[in-house]
Amino acid sequence: MIVKLKRNANQTDVTHLKEHLRNQGFELHESIGTSYSIFGVVGDTASFDMRSLYAYECVESVVRVQEPFKKVNRKFTQEDTIIDVNGVRIGGDNIVVMAGPCSVESKEQVDIIAKAVKEAGAKILRGGAFKPRTSPYSYQGMGVEGLQILKEAGDKYGMPIISELMSTENIDDFLQYVDIIQVGARNMQNFHLLKELGKLDKPILLKRGFSNTIEEWLMSAEYIMAGGNNNVILCERGIRTFEPYTRNTLDISTIPVVKKLSHLPVIIDPSHAAGKWDYVESLSLASIAAGADGLIIEVHHDPEHAMSDGAQSLKPKKFEELMTKAETVSSAVGKTLER
Amino acid sequence: MIVKLKRNANQTDVTHLKEHLRNQGFELHESIGTSYSIFGVVGDTASFDMRSLYAYECVESVVRVQEPFKKVNRKFTQEDTIIDVNGVRIGGDNIVVMAGPCSVESKEQVDIIAKAVKEAGAKILRGGAFKPRTSPYSYQGMGVEGLQILKEAGDKYGMPIISELMSTENIDDFLQYVDIIQVGARNMQNFHLLKELGKLDKPILLKRGFSNTIEEWLMSAEYIMAGGNNNVILCERGIRTFEPYTRNTLDISTIPVVKKLSHLPVIIDPSHAAGKWDYVESLSLASIAAGADGLIIEVHHDPEHAMSDGAQSLKPKKFEELMTKAETVSSAVGKTLER
Amino acid sequence: MIVKLKRNANQTDVTHLKEHLRNQGFELHESIGTSYSIFGVVGDTASFDMRSLYAYECVESVVRVQEPFKKVNRKFTQEDTIIDVNGVRIGGDNIVVMAGPCSVESKEQVDIIAKAVKEAGAKILRGGAFKPRTSPYSYQGMGVEGLQILKEAGDKYGMPIISELMSTENIDDFLQYVDIIQVGARNMQNFHLLKELGKLDKPILLKRGFSNTIEEWLMSAEYIMAGGNNNVILCERGIRTFEPYTRNTLDISTIPVVKKLSHLPVIIDPSHAAGKWDYVESLSLASIAAGADGLIIEVHHDPEHAMSDGAQSLKPKKFEELMTKAETVSSAVGKTLER
Amino acid sequence: MIVKLKRNANQTDVTHLKEHLRNQGFELHESIGTSYSIFGVVGDTASFDMRSLYAYECVESVVRVQEPFKKVNRKFTQEDTIIDVNGVRIGGDNIVVMAGPCSVESKEQVDIIAKAVKEAGAKILRGGAFKPRTSPYSYQGMGVEGLQILKEAGDKYGMPIISELMSTENIDDFLQYVDIIQVGARNMQNFHLLKELGKLDKPILLKRGFSNTIEEWLMSAEYIMAGGNNNVILCERGIRTFEPYTRNTLDISTIPVVKKLSHLPVIIDPSHAAGKWDYVESLSLASIAAGADGLIIEVHHDPEHAMSDGAQSLKPKKFEELMTKAETVSSAVGKTLER
Repeated sequence: MIVKLKRNANQTDVTHLKEHLRNQGFELHESIGTSYSIFGVVGDTASFDMRSLYAYECVESVVRVQEPFKKVNRKFTQEDTIIDVNGVRIGGDNIVVMAGPCSVESKEQVDIIAKAVKEAGAKILRGGAFKPRTSPYSYQGMGVEGLQILKEAGDKYGMPIISELMSTENIDDFLQYVDIIQVGARNMQNFHLLKELGKLDKPILLKRGFSNTIEEWLMSAEYIMAGGNNNVILCERGIRTFEPYTRNTLDISTIPVVKKLSHLPVIIDPSHAAGKWDYVESLSLASIAAGADGLIIEVHHDPEHAMSDGAQSLKPKKFEELMTKAETVSSAVGKTLER
Repeated sequence: MIVKLKRNANQTDVTHLKEHLRNQGFELHESIGTSYSIFGVVGDTASFDMRSLYAYECVESVVRVQEPFKKVNRKFTQEDTIIDVNGVRIGGDNIVVMAGPCSVESKEQVDIIAKAVKEAGAKILRGGAFKPRTSPYSYQGMGVEGLQILKEAGDKYGMPIISELMSTENIDDFLQYVDIIQVGARNMQNFHLLKELGKLDKPILLKRGFSNTIEEWLMSAEYIMAGGNNNVILCERGIRTFEPYTRNTLDISTIPVVKKLSHLPVIIDPSHAAGKWDYVESLSLASIAAGADGLIIEVHHDPEHAMSDGAQSLKPKKFEELMTKAETVSSAVGKTLER
Repeated sequence: MIVKLKRNANQTDVTHLKEHLRNQGFELHESIGTSYSIFGVVGDTASFDMRSLYAYECVESVVRVQEPFKKVNRKFTQEDTIIDVNGVRIGGDNIVVMAGPCSVESKEQVDIIAKAVKEAGAKILRGGAFKPRTSPYSYQGMGVEGLQILKEAGDKYGMPIISELMSTENIDDFLQYVDIIQVGARNMQNFHLLKELGKLDKPILLKRGFSNTIEEWLMSAEYIMAGGNNNVILCERGIRTFEPYTRNTLDISTIPVVKKLSHLPVIIDPSHAAGKWDYVESLSLASIAAGADGLIIEVHHDPEHAMSDGAQSLKPKKFEELMTKAETVSSAVGKTLER
Repeated sequence: MIVKLKRNANQTDVTHLKEHLRNQGFELHESIGTSYSIFGVVGDTASFDMRSLYAYECVESVVRVQEPFKKVNRKFTQEDTIIDVNGVRIGGDNIVVMAGPCSVESKEQVDIIAKAVKEAGAKILRGGAFKPRTSPYSYQGMGVEGLQILKEAGDKYGMPIISELMSTENIDDFLQYVDIIQVGARNMQNFHLLKELGKLDKPILLKRGFSNTIEEWLMSAEYIMAGGNNNVILCERGIRTFEPYTRNTLDISTIPVVKKLSHLPVIIDPSHAAGKWDYVESLSLASIAAGADGLIIEVHHDPEHAMSDGAQSLKPKKFEELMTKAETVSSAVGKTLER
């Protein structure tokens, strides 16, 4: 951490500041130039609230030079984390595709879609039973019954299932029925929820909030890992920008950036990023080429009547075409998409 | 709602679309130009998920022309809502200032600050007992004990208190100790929490998420009101943009925009927007001049040693100066800031 | 400037880096901690391209601690710059209002509007003769004839005039007819244009690009001042964000931020920020309360038939009401708006 | 175009609005619901300034349903445009790579780099002679001499050249020495420049401004085509967002979106998007997989001493590795990268 002092800083204030920093156990290295003076603050600054120093009038700016995340950090765990979900390995050299409907609507619907995506090569079944909707008047999901339907289809077709958890109150149901617990973009900084998930050993797929920086995202992963749960999968699903043609802007650069900063696997959700099904294929292939560990894709056999997100859902035939192309691109970058 | 069809749209698909819309109880008005055709969809489209229509291949674009919020909407409630919190009226022609420390740290700390802000003219005491922190290693707050300390100070100085709730598990404690429940920016779309708050009749201060649109913010207020709780106070605290000089960008325009769209009171939080105490005064005066109903400001007598947000906290003397100026600007725009 | 090295940095590479920095005339101060090493680089780093150091493989991050702007910097010129435009003083304790139509359309139109804004208390007449339009099919302005019309009205009503210059080819015409040359948001980083304006001594009003940081904006002002022209007026007109209710998001915080960083006057354009006339009054009063030196406002007597920006133009009666309120708010913050 | 009227709209105002629209040659189709009324406005609304209607008090909102671009629009030109630059075809099924230094620094430097990129398979040589720099104190480029150096190397190695034009004053030099004229991100809405380029028949590579929407970008292409120059190549180079880990956020979705909206070729610049050389490979492969027509990449044999953008320049060996992978990914998506 670097602290730059103001010109003409009050010396008593500077003395207080130095004392305060030394009291935290830090060592100070001063650099005094002709026009400014600077301290290098050395020690375990990762868990120190850097902004707090602005309360000192003598401080002009404070700059972090050490990442604030530890367990997530590749500096401390150099090998890629591979997470085994009932035999499906996420991370490493294989590409895993998770697919299924946005919302669970009925047993029949899930069965049709699960069968189709399994045949096309998806390894994990997705489906929402608790739905975060902008409007209180929109469809809110089937709840626990939806989880049971998913589980049944997962058992029938041999696929682990993933579903979104919105509240700590439902943790027990998720432990019973679900193989990967998804934390949605809107809950990425629901710290109460993250702490509870840190106490489990179930894999967690943590979506990036649509306006959160990569650093904040990794800090939310750190919350889960700090609690003792190391099974964290990161999922980029598009960020909010000024561009209206897409629902969100897929931040494809997160793939190389996160791969450099962290050892955790990275999955891409092209469906929510694009918001329209006809861009999903292009974004999926790009994600694999950029180095992602997998995809999570919305598929529906009758999107016109889907309870949610029909606009961005692929029909099974289109999904199968995508899987064929995804397999080819995976090989081109030295990865394997088993189907 | 307006639906524009693609050129060369498949007629069977168009027929299905029309049927689907009529099945929802909508009336259709067609406009057919030389180069495109359009439907006006008339009916209660506020609660209809407009994006779902993109699942039809014949649809090129869908545009909402009716706001999706109802109870929050000024069209249906023309008079300003005024919320009475133990005799302090929020909304209308008076300016209310809420002030206090970012975090409750001790009984003594709260007492010193409460006394100071009361004398300077603040009507409501703020203080955080459950703190949403980006890092799991940062100070997380005193919890229920913090609420008790706040309540004691509130009773002593005759000030209602406001504090942030992070989880439904603590609702009972908040009902007992707190007069206004604050929903923080990161929980603005924690729909599970909003639904529970809709069942109370305690006033709720709903902060705008730092990347949420005004429409989404009003929809979150709609969640609370749809549940039956009409006591919603909106709070703008800055949005996330590309500009690094301020912690967030205060969206001052929300004031006239929300006043036009809704009847709910609007409070501004200049402390979190600015992120540095020396911009707080300027933003506070601007907010009053723009038509806000009040302010919520962080004050600390010893910001250098504050457990959180020392950088953006005003010292009591500076806060008093601000209150004097705020009183003058309030008069200049025909409002009253009673002290 | 601070340079942080990677762990396990190659020592030959580090030696090359140090040589390179010393060759630029910098002094190096090293801080070596247990887990990282850092250099403080001391000297005139303002004009050094900091990002270039990332080309060294040993470099993990580079952080600037000195502002890259000099002539614009309040550290080197502590007193507020006041710019005298034919007797109208911009900066200091007076509030100056510039008003007029978006586009010059005819002699009669300008005459009607100039008379009205003069009577309401505006000191400077604005009007566009060369119009930057997103579409090649939109109205592009009257050109030089428009400038002549403005000048005539300015002479008749005793008002200096301001108009936007889009190309160096028209500089001579602007020198002849215009008192303040406006650089539009889209040309804020048209460096060829800025360099030419640096050679003049005519006042320049430099609008902030709708996606430029405050630092970039000040660097563009630095271009003009580096060329020798010190008469720079900064103008904030809203930035681009994700919020669609307003055309742009007025960044009100620029006022205290720029006042701290620079000695140059700051003018606010609420018309372009809001994009709708009914938000203009609220944003104008906020700007004055926040500490702006003045406003630039679009006024049209017949906005329904305006060639451009009718949506955000005030009618003369509404403008007069605004001026009355603006005068009161100016007094409330210790400034004077002479009418 | 759809116009929605306010509830209780003044009927005289509505009559004026209708007259005004009919005077523009438009046909009106009314839809009157129980709670609102709407007009469909039919005719050539592409060149009509939609926002102007907000000047009518009766208007609540105006929504465009027709794209404002014509010559650029795929609806009117269904086949992909292929641009032939001295035998190198841009567009269609081949992937073209443009490479070279950020700045031309000397004859030797350009010769070394041109030789290396040619051998690795690049078809077009890039290099900057006029440099847009944020700081007036940074290196500004070699000017015309730089163009001559580029041309000489282009002739020697059989590569057409591309360079950025910053001012209309240099058009003659560019016509003489350059094969593709690049318009930089900061000049994307320099309409004076675009108009002049519309009069040439030289290919233009139009970079997207870092905060411009796709629609604005296509409208700038429309400026060039409206002037008569159909040889426009679009280039995405990253947009400005809140994320600081990358210099810009590469908007990979522009590829499928623009391919749907327009027939023009799309090139990606991963170097400026990433801002760091180690992300360039990942973004390049992603771009090809997503459907781009080519890449423009910065290469330097001695990036530590480059005059600009050393941080994001690949060394020749790294570039060659990238080209090998790019060739494989091109095949995987059915395209050809000839080397």
